[in-house]
Amino acid sequence: MAGRFITLEGGEGTGKSTQIKRLKAALETKGLTVLATREPGGSPGAEQIRSLMVEGEPGRWDAITETLLVYAARADHVARTIGPALLAGTWVISDRFSDSTFAYQGVGRGVPRETIRRIDSAVLDDFAPDLTLVLDLDVQLGLKRAMARGASENRFEKFGLEFHEKLRQAFLDIARRYPDRCRVIDAGGSEDEVSEAILAAVSRRFDL
Amino acid sequence: MAGRFITLEGGEGTGKSTQIKRLKAALETKGLTVLATREPGGSPGAEQIRSLMVEGEPGRWDAITETLLVYAARADHVARTIGPALLAGTWVISDRFSDSTFAYQGVGRGVPRETIRRIDSAVLDDFAPDLTLVLDLDVQLGLKRAMARGASENRFEKFGLEFHEKLRQAFLDIARRYPDRCRVIDAGGSEDEVSEAILAAVSRRFDL
Repeated sequence: MAGRFITLEGGEGTGKSTQIKRLKAALETKGLTVLATREPGGSPGAEQIRSLMVEGEPGRWDAITETLLVYAARADHVARTIGPALLAGTWVISDRFSDSTFAYQGVGRGVPRETIRRIDSAVLDDFAPDLTLVLDLDVQLGLKRAMARGASENRFEKFGLEFHEKLRQAFLDIARRYPDRCRVIDAGGSEDEVSEAILAAVSRRFDL
Repeated sequence: MAGRFITLEGGEGTGKSTQIKRLKAALETKGLTVLATREPGGSPGAEQIRSLMVEGEPGRWDAITETLLVYAARADHVARTIGPALLAGTWVISDRFSDSTFAYQGVGRGVPRETIRRIDSAVLDDFAPDLTLVLDLDVQLGLKRAMARGASENRFEKFGLEFHEKLRQAFLDIARRYPDRCRVIDAGGSEDEVSEAILAAVSRRFDL
């Protein structure tokens, strides 16, 4: 049986990578084979495209160019990593996927939703996650956590508070727009609380 | 007054770069300001994307990923180089543009025309060359010339004869499909003969 595709979405410092490790471990104790991956990146080619994107100054790429680089990396990630894993029965958890493009390049940087939708549909056809967990957190708290982590490569952290507030609303809007696929998770609690909420949502969705 | 945008298209060894130098010089003697550029590349960002694409083995990128990288580079090239030059009244001559994607990634590598058309339209809207010169040449002769040139970076030269024959037909098909924009130039003659034919086509098109 094919695996399931779960994505975690949300702004900076919402704890996605920590929670992915915990979710992976929890699913493995249920006997599932789980692959944790991330975007942009997740395959050797996509990682090389990622390095083009995350280095340098905010104005390095126009928003539409950035969108195309993201989708080039995503196409590689799906063809070389996600697709083969799902076919082999592996569950795949990705730190970000298409929703992040609608939030970052769309709402954040002004690429029209319809432009992204046309690229998405040309590239991915109807491929989408089985479940998307939107980690929602106060923006100031999220940025404080991200800065404390000392992440240096992330160009997006330089864009300022207003940008990140727009992102937060964009992710909440996506969750409202796709209620069957998305669950909003309150990321303001302790790591234990958040991972309990995530595991509950995953278990309900897939009858685990 | 805005400049004009001229593209040269065609397979390997058809002499595009030589002919662009000659056309640039000829237009400059008419008092025009001319910028010669090339794809993939033509702006610092696009050149970096180009280097991702032209290095490595033929199977490095899936055809759709390659298509997206080409359009990312093209978006940067248009935004940072071609667009500003045209607005400043400069004539721009580009070695390859969108037609090459329909030929190489479309006909050559099997990306559906409609997929490329959707990406092209999402990214470029209606932006297209004012004139496209399709340099047409016997495939064996073209490859012999390209090999003699000793071009080492060009991954496309490894794909084989059948591939290049498909490309040639693809370019001729594009010229038939867009007769207002395209002129087919017989690239089998001497450099002088070819550049005379090109200059005649350019002069007629723009009443020079």
